[in-house]
Amino acid sequence: MSLDSPTVKPHDRLAAALAEDMAAVNTLIRESMASKHAPRIPQVTAHLVEAGGKRLRPMLTLASARLCGYDGPYHVHLAAAVEFIHTATLLHDDVVDESRQRRGRPTANLLWDNKSSVLVGDYLFARSFQLMVEAKSIRVLDILANAAATIAEGEVLQLMASQSLATDEPVYFQIIRGKTAALFSAATEVGAVLAGRPEEEIRALFDYGDALGVSFQIVDDLLDYWGTDATGKNVGDDFRERKMTLPVIKAVAAGDQTERAFWARVIEKGDQRDGDLEHALELLNAHGALEQTRTDALAWAGKAKDALAVMPRSDMRDMLADLADYVVARVN
Amino acid sequence: MSLDSPTVKPHDRLAAALAEDMAAVNTLIRESMASKHAPRIPQVTAHLVEAGGKRLRPMLTLASARLCGYDGPYHVHLAAAVEFIHTATLLHDDVVDESRQRRGRPTANLLWDNKSSVLVGDYLFARSFQLMVEAKSIRVLDILANAAATIAEGEVLQLMASQSLATDEPVYFQIIRGKTAALFSAATEVGAVLAGRPEEEIRALFDYGDALGVSFQIVDDLLDYWGTDATGKNVGDDFRERKMTLPVIKAVAAGDQTERAFWARVIEKGDQRDGDLEHALELLNAHGALEQTRTDALAWAGKAKDALAVMPRSDMRDMLADLADYVVARVN
Repeated sequence: MSLDSPTVKPHDRLAAALAEDMAAVNTLIRESMASKHAPRIPQVTAHLVEAGGKRLRPMLTLASARLCGYDGPYHVHLAAAVEFIHTATLLHDDVVDESRQRRGRPTANLLWDNKSSVLVGDYLFARSFQLMVEAKSIRVLDILANAAATIAEGEVLQLMASQSLATDEPVYFQIIRGKTAALFSAATEVGAVLAGRPEEEIRALFDYGDALGVSFQIVDDLLDYWGTDATGKNVGDDFRERKMTLPVIKAVAAGDQTERAFWARVIEKGDQRDGDLEHALELLNAHGALEQTRTDALAWAGKAKDALAVMPRSDMRDMLADLADYVVARVN
Repeated sequence: MSLDSPTVKPHDRLAAALAEDMAAVNTLIRESMASKHAPRIPQVTAHLVEAGGKRLRPMLTLASARLCGYDGPYHVHLAAAVEFIHTATLLHDDVVDESRQRRGRPTANLLWDNKSSVLVGDYLFARSFQLMVEAKSIRVLDILANAAATIAEGEVLQLMASQSLATDEPVYFQIIRGKTAALFSAATEVGAVLAGRPEEEIRALFDYGDALGVSFQIVDDLLDYWGTDATGKNVGDDFRERKMTLPVIKAVAAGDQTERAFWARVIEKGDQRDGDLEHALELLNAHGALEQTRTDALAWAGKAKDALAVMPRSDMRDMLADLADYVVARVN
């Protein structure tokens, strides 16, 4: 089967096109997570980094740099830095959410302890910072420092907004821009900055990453109510964790007083009983909340593709556009 | 009482000499911890930042920049960045140690929760990174990124080395260089780098901060067995937490088989009974472990003062030398 066959997933086509760079990223990641003195660090890191994640974020940096014609070595450092920020965030998220499973395996906080997850996460943040400094670009550092602050602010905001029916769409978008889109947009923007492209193209690659990240997170939140075993998501996880995601926000906004009382009981009070998830799904369907959420996800994927219009045509541009379609294909 | 009177503490003399700069640092800290969207962030941060800490680390950056004749604005940003790294570390430390009190007040993890401490700590790390980027110096960023990685590595190392009698003096020094000296030395080094001083002086200010930090931590660990109410330390906290600090390492190394069995029971097994702390103190005294630890602390304070010799004479240099004496005065 040829790699440009439409039956090959865009993610796999990108991975094949970037295979050499990605091998360099993986080598740099392995070198950077080594610690002569504290073997716990590479143990915990490897557990996550080598768990077969899709490496989507570092791939975005590599793809953006390639699309922009960058021919230096530092897109590899920035891609590794982006993956380390992501890994550090996952380690801390699993502590905060008291998660027991990630990617089908026990979490680090379960295998070791919360302490190791907190401190190894801090180490990876610091390491990512060292990797970024290698590129010796103040503008790149500024972008990634801002992204790191937006991510952390989004996480705190999510902590405060969950379990509250007052959480509306603007707050939801602030949260997902923080927890997901900020790193996507920084990952693509720095590729264009490294390559010294004009402001219009830097902005376009920021917009692409931002819209792709928003779309990605909306789909993820939708699948939590719409998923099947094939998507690898368990229906109802977010419901049980009382998270105010887009489908619920839409259903709450459209609901009458009786429905509001139901949501207040299950989300705000956390008093969940047999049949509640099924009733929630009925309400989501009755108000078209899942369908509207799906429409929003498709619109954001469309924005991501539109943003690429100012970039010169190339195979890489087509692959990034296809990637936006692919992100929403799970709900299409 | 005049400020140069010998009865005024060196720390207070420094604070008076740097009052204007420190006011600018405090303003920048307040501005930087604001978050429009997530009020939990300034609440948690203010709880620590405004708890009346000594601001020793940012003061070192300001003093070093002043000593080096720096006349730009960015020592203020770097001092605030250093304080944020320190505050973030305290937030995460209290989660890892499950602490309930700091500086005589309930910890953030107790007042709010572990989640807030982890995520607000991450936010402050990111903010400190943004503040550093303002100075637009790759070398400064390199120094602070390396310090951040050394701190995190030291914390992980401490996690693994505590409760193990195999922890020896070299491991102890690696740990305290990470948890304490790395930020002290980075704080002083960046002042000299900002001012564009010759390599010899940059190295001297690094060495001063490093030796001051090592001395500071040894004194802190000594006071945990030697302290009185006047020093604000509770004798035996480290013993109860089964930490392998310098006094214990020295006593274990000098002990016979019976004593080793005692240490194995209280430190490794954590089986502590009435009278164990008193017996530990007897062993520490019998082997001169406290006295030797005190001698080490004084020697490191001496190294800190010696490092300043290459700097031109000035009031600021004298104040930094006096500060080294002051750090060990608690055990002198």
